[in-house]
Amino acid sequence: MPQNVIDVAPEILDDLVAANRILADQGILDAFGHVSIRHPGNPDHYLMSRWLAPALVTAEDIVEYDLESVALTHPGLQLYSERYIHSEIYKVRSDVHAIVHSHSPTVVPFGVTHAPFRPILHNAAFLGDFVPVFDIREKFGPSDMLVNRKERGTELARVLAKHTTALMRGHGDVVVGSNIQNVVWRAYYTEINARMLAQAIAIGGGPIMYLSAEEAVLTDASMQRVEARPWKLWKQKALGRS
Amino acid sequence: MPQNVIDVAPEILDDLVAANRILADQGILDAFGHVSIRHPGNPDHYLMSRWLAPALVTAEDIVEYDLESVALTHPGLQLYSERYIHSEIYKVRSDVHAIVHSHSPTVVPFGVTHAPFRPILHNAAFLGDFVPVFDIREKFGPSDMLVNRKERGTELARVLAKHTTALMRGHGDVVVGSNIQNVVWRAYYTEINARMLAQAIAIGGGPIMYLSAEEAVLTDASMQRVEARPWKLWKQKALGRS
Amino acid sequence: MPQNVIDVAPEILDDLVAANRILADQGILDAFGHVSIRHPGNPDHYLMSRWLAPALVTAEDIVEYDLESVALTHPGLQLYSERYIHSEIYKVRSDVHAIVHSHSPTVVPFGVTHAPFRPILHNAAFLGDFVPVFDIREKFGPSDMLVNRKERGTELARVLAKHTTALMRGHGDVVVGSNIQNVVWRAYYTEINARMLAQAIAIGGGPIMYLSAEEAVLTDASMQRVEARPWKLWKQKALGRS
Amino acid sequence: MPQNVIDVAPEILDDLVAANRILADQGILDAFGHVSIRHPGNPDHYLMSRWLAPALVTAEDIVEYDLESVALTHPGLQLYSERYIHSEIYKVRSDVHAIVHSHSPTVVPFGVTHAPFRPILHNAAFLGDFVPVFDIREKFGPSDMLVNRKERGTELARVLAKHTTALMRGHGDVVVGSNIQNVVWRAYYTEINARMLAQAIAIGGGPIMYLSAEEAVLTDASMQRVEARPWKLWKQKALGRS
Repeated sequence: MPQNVIDVAPEILDDLVAANRILADQGILDAFGHVSIRHPGNPDHYLMSRWLAPALVTAEDIVEYDLESVALTHPGLQLYSERYIHSEIYKVRSDVHAIVHSHSPTVVPFGVTHAPFRPILHNAAFLGDFVPVFDIREKFGPSDMLVNRKERGTELARVLAKHTTALMRGHGDVVVGSNIQNVVWRAYYTEINARMLAQAIAIGGGPIMYLSAEEAVLTDASMQRVEARPWKLWKQKALGRS
Repeated sequence: MPQNVIDVAPEILDDLVAANRILADQGILDAFGHVSIRHPGNPDHYLMSRWLAPALVTAEDIVEYDLESVALTHPGLQLYSERYIHSEIYKVRSDVHAIVHSHSPTVVPFGVTHAPFRPILHNAAFLGDFVPVFDIREKFGPSDMLVNRKERGTELARVLAKHTTALMRGHGDVVVGSNIQNVVWRAYYTEINARMLAQAIAIGGGPIMYLSAEEAVLTDASMQRVEARPWKLWKQKALGRS
Repeated sequence: MPQNVIDVAPEILDDLVAANRILADQGILDAFGHVSIRHPGNPDHYLMSRWLAPALVTAEDIVEYDLESVALTHPGLQLYSERYIHSEIYKVRSDVHAIVHSHSPTVVPFGVTHAPFRPILHNAAFLGDFVPVFDIREKFGPSDMLVNRKERGTELARVLAKHTTALMRGHGDVVVGSNIQNVVWRAYYTEINARMLAQAIAIGGGPIMYLSAEEAVLTDASMQRVEARPWKLWKQKALGRS
Repeated sequence: MPQNVIDVAPEILDDLVAANRILADQGILDAFGHVSIRHPGNPDHYLMSRWLAPALVTAEDIVEYDLESVALTHPGLQLYSERYIHSEIYKVRSDVHAIVHSHSPTVVPFGVTHAPFRPILHNAAFLGDFVPVFDIREKFGPSDMLVNRKERGTELARVLAKHTTALMRGHGDVVVGSNIQNVVWRAYYTEINARMLAQAIAIGGGPIMYLSAEEAVLTDASMQRVEARPWKLWKQKALGRS
């Protein structure tokens, strides 16, 4: 394989770059966090930027990895140390084709408290009726909090199980989706739901009326039909073009 | 009728486009939500954009609908699935000539708690002394949370009754007004009042001093006389021209 | 007197315009609120914009008023209905040479609760150890909440007494100063202190450590010596020039 | 020594200017606060801007000081009155090569409450398991709250002790680091951690799960290896170039 050439349609890389820029522009990703997609032509590979702030990613920075998170392009470049988040989830979740890891600002607080994180906005119905929390010290004891080894990624994937989102204590969250638009929607509305839920808890006045499990299933199906609308808007805002 | 031609003065469409842009620019509308006006020449028709993020709406995107929410222009284009919010309210509220449906970020939390949502800022006096909450499951059981069928719109209009604003559990709110400037004011200050009220509740220190019912009536009358001031400012900010 | 000519140095008008723009740019004023100065050559007159959003004010919009709030320039133009806030305070506070009335977003919540509003940031030391609340219904019963009559202004000035700031229930606040830079500082840091204090209350963990009365006096004196620093920054940001 | 010439590589001054601009751009510094570095060629001198809002600092404004905070360049110019914060810390902390003093907006509230300020985000691991609070009145009684005399700086340095951060009641905080990128990271994530922790406290639902002391040590070491990533992003955003 030529060193930095990835055998996918240019639109695929363009969308992956757009996802990085959109999530940075919307404040979901800061200088950290990463977005990946499963290789559309090879389910045992995935695509993700080299070590770079998401706001600065271009198509030239996209690296191809195998499912041991070994880079197959861009020899010698620095890589995200936490790429095992992605490879270990792709291994066990064949339904997942795109992943976002972020330090989403209002999601981190939910990961260090015991308040339930459940949807109160229809756009966040994908959260379902349970969002697990990955607390790295439960299995690994005191650590540097990073999923920078294969076994930590394996454990995170185990905790995520069949869900769409897992909180990571003292760190952030991981969100999985069926495609790039879907995962960007989910990363965005995970943060929006966190902001609204934090407000609702502070307002108080009685128990929060979450979406029920049944409502979440029905609503998520409807929401997946309108993902193109925010994508177009966000892309135009982040990139100056649609 | 020619396919996409609406028989109103250009200024009318211009104001409807401006309303979409203003509410997106001010963060009241995200990629979702919609703004409509009753057709000035035909009270049994209303005007609203095709399926599009409000920030991207232009005059060419405005569709004419009848009160069954059948599009009379723009054949074949995708439409907002929740247009029944608008038609069912126009049917029963002859005083209403403009409607905004939004996922106003700080209003959603009030819709999932039991704290009263009442005005604490004079600009929000139109909220009066009661804002109803539409909880879709009360009549329809588990659903996809969307007002995407005529009977759901009918029920929402019933809950709204004679009020200016109704919260929608897990979804957002609907605000009605007598004209486009009036409804933009109301959508904007519904959010501002929600932010201030959430703060006041968190500050605590005793019961909140809301505007009384009598104050709300007197103040709303005064406020309607100054609606042109923010409109001019917001329009300049959103469109770069007044 | 020629119709719209005010007999002051151009720099005076320039600073008054800058104050309007700065406070709008910093989010203290929205489309409403106003800034005035006492006429430097005639203590029985004051200067303030005609009816206009502060962000749009230019030197041509500055009107000269007497202390009955009668406009002496710009005949026939629409004026702020609440100009009595300014004239009634100038009448009884000879130390005051500049006034800001705003709907400062985080100050309004303090005006509808019973939590004490006192300084927790050294820059807000001017708040002293007491900030009165003007509740219009105490003297006038149910009203439209506006200080749009002389007697309401008189009462507000009475409640303000010798203080720098008064909260206005359901409305906003009024801040007075010895000159334009001083009053802009005070309007800005009233809002900043409100934000920080609301946070401190929510954080909890024991009583808030406010600045003591003695600290407030000592600190306010030091702060008045550095008012030129933010003024220069804010002006450059709001006007693109210093 | 020529009046305003500092004998360091231009890149050193460029980074110090960038640090001022970055922290202003990110909202950590407002018109106040300052950033200094120890002189790379002379550990008994330090470099910091003259009296100026950080957003406006250029290389020409950088002054060289000795450890009594006497300016050795720029004769006659106005200087920060609180420069003793810097000199007194440099005197006793040979490991410190860069210092930020700020009125970080969400850190101030923690300085006036008794809630513990500890890390809940891995990027803030440098906070360790204890952040001291400097309350100026404990040693000096009522004051103008400013560290504008040598003895006040000495006391602040004593309270800071071996820690990375000290809160200053009613004022702000001071953050120290091993180099300019390190201290900018720390000033930024002190604020981010404060925002997240305030949210976590408001969310409630049980005790906060802070990073343990052991986790903080391990995580801080890993974080120091990735400081170049946000620096590049922030610099590009603040200066329009990397």
